[in-house]
Amino acid sequence: MAFESVAVTPSAYTYPLLIKQLLHTPLATSLDQEIVYRDKCRLTYRDLSQRIGRLANTLTRQGVTSGSTVAMMDWDSHRYLECFFAVPMMGAVLQTVNIRLSPEQILYTLNHAKADVVLVNAEFIPMLAIIKDQLETVKKFILISDDGADMASFKIPYAGEYEALLAAESASYDFPDFDENTRATTFYTTGTTGLPKGVYFSHRQLVLHTLAVAAHLGTAPGQGRLHRDDVYMPITPMFHVHAWGLPYIATMLGVKQVYPGRYAPDTLAQYIRDEKVTFSHCVPTILHMLLSSAAAKDVDFSNWKVIIGGAAFPKGMAAMALARGIDVFAGYGMSETCPILTIARLPSEMAEADLDLQADQRIKTGYPIPLVDLRTVDGEMVDTPRDGKSAGEIVVRAPWLTMGYLHNPAASEDLWEGNCLHTGDIGVIDAKGCLIVTDRLKDVIKTGGEWVSSLELENIISQHPAVNEVAVIGVKDDKWGERPMALVVLKEGQSVSADEIKAHVMNFAEAGHVSRYAVPNQVRFVQSLARTSVGKINKKAIREEVAG
Amino acid sequence: MAFESVAVTPSAYTYPLLIKQLLHTPLATSLDQEIVYRDKCRLTYRDLSQRIGRLANTLTRQGVTSGSTVAMMDWDSHRYLECFFAVPMMGAVLQTVNIRLSPEQILYTLNHAKADVVLVNAEFIPMLAIIKDQLETVKKFILISDDGADMASFKIPYAGEYEALLAAESASYDFPDFDENTRATTFYTTGTTGLPKGVYFSHRQLVLHTLAVAAHLGTAPGQGRLHRDDVYMPITPMFHVHAWGLPYIATMLGVKQVYPGRYAPDTLAQYIRDEKVTFSHCVPTILHMLLSSAAAKDVDFSNWKVIIGGAAFPKGMAAMALARGIDVFAGYGMSETCPILTIARLPSEMAEADLDLQADQRIKTGYPIPLVDLRTVDGEMVDTPRDGKSAGEIVVRAPWLTMGYLHNPAASEDLWEGNCLHTGDIGVIDAKGCLIVTDRLKDVIKTGGEWVSSLELENIISQHPAVNEVAVIGVKDDKWGERPMALVVLKEGQSVSADEIKAHVMNFAEAGHVSRYAVPNQVRFVQSLARTSVGKINKKAIREEVAG
Repeated sequence: MAFESVAVTPSAYTYPLLIKQLLHTPLATSLDQEIVYRDKCRLTYRDLSQRIGRLANTLTRQGVTSGSTVAMMDWDSHRYLECFFAVPMMGAVLQTVNIRLSPEQILYTLNHAKADVVLVNAEFIPMLAIIKDQLETVKKFILISDDGADMASFKIPYAGEYEALLAAESASYDFPDFDENTRATTFYTTGTTGLPKGVYFSHRQLVLHTLAVAAHLGTAPGQGRLHRDDVYMPITPMFHVHAWGLPYIATMLGVKQVYPGRYAPDTLAQYIRDEKVTFSHCVPTILHMLLSSAAAKDVDFSNWKVIIGGAAFPKGMAAMALARGIDVFAGYGMSETCPILTIARLPSEMAEADLDLQADQRIKTGYPIPLVDLRTVDGEMVDTPRDGKSAGEIVVRAPWLTMGYLHNPAASEDLWEGNCLHTGDIGVIDAKGCLIVTDRLKDVIKTGGEWVSSLELENIISQHPAVNEVAVIGVKDDKWGERPMALVVLKEGQSVSADEIKAHVMNFAEAGHVSRYAVPNQVRFVQSLARTSVGKINKKAIREEVAG
Repeated sequence: MAFESVAVTPSAYTYPLLIKQLLHTPLATSLDQEIVYRDKCRLTYRDLSQRIGRLANTLTRQGVTSGSTVAMMDWDSHRYLECFFAVPMMGAVLQTVNIRLSPEQILYTLNHAKADVVLVNAEFIPMLAIIKDQLETVKKFILISDDGADMASFKIPYAGEYEALLAAESASYDFPDFDENTRATTFYTTGTTGLPKGVYFSHRQLVLHTLAVAAHLGTAPGQGRLHRDDVYMPITPMFHVHAWGLPYIATMLGVKQVYPGRYAPDTLAQYIRDEKVTFSHCVPTILHMLLSSAAAKDVDFSNWKVIIGGAAFPKGMAAMALARGIDVFAGYGMSETCPILTIARLPSEMAEADLDLQADQRIKTGYPIPLVDLRTVDGEMVDTPRDGKSAGEIVVRAPWLTMGYLHNPAASEDLWEGNCLHTGDIGVIDAKGCLIVTDRLKDVIKTGGEWVSSLELENIISQHPAVNEVAVIGVKDDKWGERPMALVVLKEGQSVSADEIKAHVMNFAEAGHVSRYAVPNQVRFVQSLARTSVGKINKKAIREEVAG
């Protein structure tokens, strides 16, 4: 017999999964809830709803229609949140521009995405000045400014200032229904090789990511759980994978939201304290910067939950955060995956455990969230055993993965080879379903027929008391194929020898934590490590430098 | 410009929302978690996964294929849970048969749904004996028995006993991908008028209901929240709107599940105590029966959370449950809505409030869950004000509403008139978005140009200390159109006059809780109230009886 689709009576509403549908609940139940932008303004969800309408009317007047691309260049703000909703709700595409890229890269992404209208914070005008004459598709600019700057003197097609434009428009806009597979957002990955690659997500994908992440974080028994009395503040930029999708989740739940503008340790600490922020997410570097800042010294962080992602979560940093009472835990995903795939958790029976034991659990890559079909596979796409030891490439299926790279068929097919998305990460899964990423496929060190994880080695070396930062790379070796080399940045005022670092690693090898092959041949002490535009350690650059 | 669908690279996996996808997370992280059936057996999720495969192979051998209909007639069991997954995962349709209907009605539903295979608990063989010769489409019967009964002597095409059939098959079955709009389940509403009407739900609808309900219950700040350490037991039958969808949610979360078989107060109390059940749902009648039973007397219910639905939640019953430490709260929906639309909650600031004040909040119809677009409208489909006073018909859009009644185009169009599903309920919404159902559209009493809610009146009268149960109906009145009449069942050993009941209502009218028009003209004392097959008060029957 044939599969039978449900019969749809002609008058039925078939309910496409559109971003506008996320607003039904908060606009019914949380109209007076607050959305705070720095110390600049406080809105309610009622205001948000009206401003979304005003923004849509503003953009319509500037020629934006279904299929247009609207590029946003701002720090984290209520305006960004408005764009998260209004632009896709019109049927247009929101391009979240990574403002940490070089002007040339930003130019490339705006042209490649065919941006029609650019909303730009006054801070980025000097950068735009460099590239404006090479923009191929942009027809209008809208200025964003906290302090009354204007762009009138700037020789571009200037539509006006954001607040003034909104104020002149009606709050009423009839957002249409359309196919849930319509593209909603686009942004560019910041890989270390080649040109930036565009990923893209549909309304359906963003709605499903929102529901599944909320279902997962909400149903955590205690540690790491998200609920409707939380106060949310992003500390991963909204231009980077929609701030991990949390602004959509926070809005759907109708919670208080705080948008901190440009990240600075002192103001972040201030907002966490004064606005009673309880839920955030950030990369390890930013957490480290925040906790080390003078401003954070007297802040009580004991009601703060923070998902840590974007890079491996060093145990030393987890310990530092736990000592301050912060509920830290790792999350895993990437630009291509919308992003969330797994979340680490402290098993309930360890709720009262020693902080050191807790840290071991909290830094794991974590457990798959609902609907995520995540496997580790060998070169033939056969599952590796779930024994916590057998490493393989992490491949995944989920309802919210990019369906390719924008206008790049070859890279798209590589990404999806064999009908699974290839993360390019190496990991192991244990019997409880917990994933641990052990390395990037590109960074793993192949020595004497064994795979040594550069991340694992970095984690060990970073636990030496004199070490501030470390990067481990493989260097060519005639006998072994590759051998590990460690580049170490020492803490201020500390000194230690290469042999002491090697002995430190050997101790871990003797205790069975790591193979003896992992003890690095060379340890180099350096002043700093090369980083990518989003602050990750740039191993490709380091490898080139070392080889150079 | 045109709306732009996301480009899908040929190798990408486009991830249909199929019921099988709910299993990824629990089968990765909760393989050793328990599923308990009465005191008869204990399985793990690993077993569940294997038994789903065995059941699919069993059904395939009996001729079941995509598009087949498999009817299930059992009390709540692990076998039912297996059918919830295996049957739709094959691309077949699961018909959950309401075994409380009359044999004639069951016959009608099996023929109307075109059931191919029937799984039947031995207890229902006598009923099948009555109807078996009139079954038009059933080709095979599979017996379910806890104690070795068999059907060999029964003159029907008997395939064998469930456990024996499963034991003979392989656990491996490659569940295919197919269109997410494929029909997964069907069952029949038990309205008080006409023939039963079939509703039906697709894979997509069940997956979205699962995610949204989990996201809503999970993110409750405290009261009423569901989490991964909960122990789930249904006390609304699995044949009735998939036990409100909770078995799918519980399975997705990988929680311990307890299936109690046929509901009996003593065994329910025993399982709650011995298996440490923390999350259930039931209709008010069953909760009342359970709490009044001798078996419940010494049971500690203080870790038990219970959603109450299926009928208005009387305040007196909420008070009785709260006094036992139970976290009770109303939920709202119907067969046509999969079912959950709204959930009541205690606002966080009332967590420590007096139980009487708490009860007022907990018995409200509640707040819409994510994606639910719920309105109250007047006869012209215009929204009534959200002032907590202006009543209107409740109409709704959500991603999980039945797209019609099975093979019944006229009723389907009535249900969806004006592109919204008509609940047939009257309600008010307050400024916080909380819905209160005040009556059935059919049961509302129109007196002197005013609408009086029969439910509100029943709620008031039920608070009189001598009253056990009450039903209020409208009776024709030449002057006023209709006037309310109360039919009262007194508590054992109690006596009270009609005038005392009227005075009790008048007190509420004087305090402004209800209109003076609401004071009933007549109060009749009766021994019992007519009920429908699922135990709801049958107002239609009562009206007919009174009209005589």
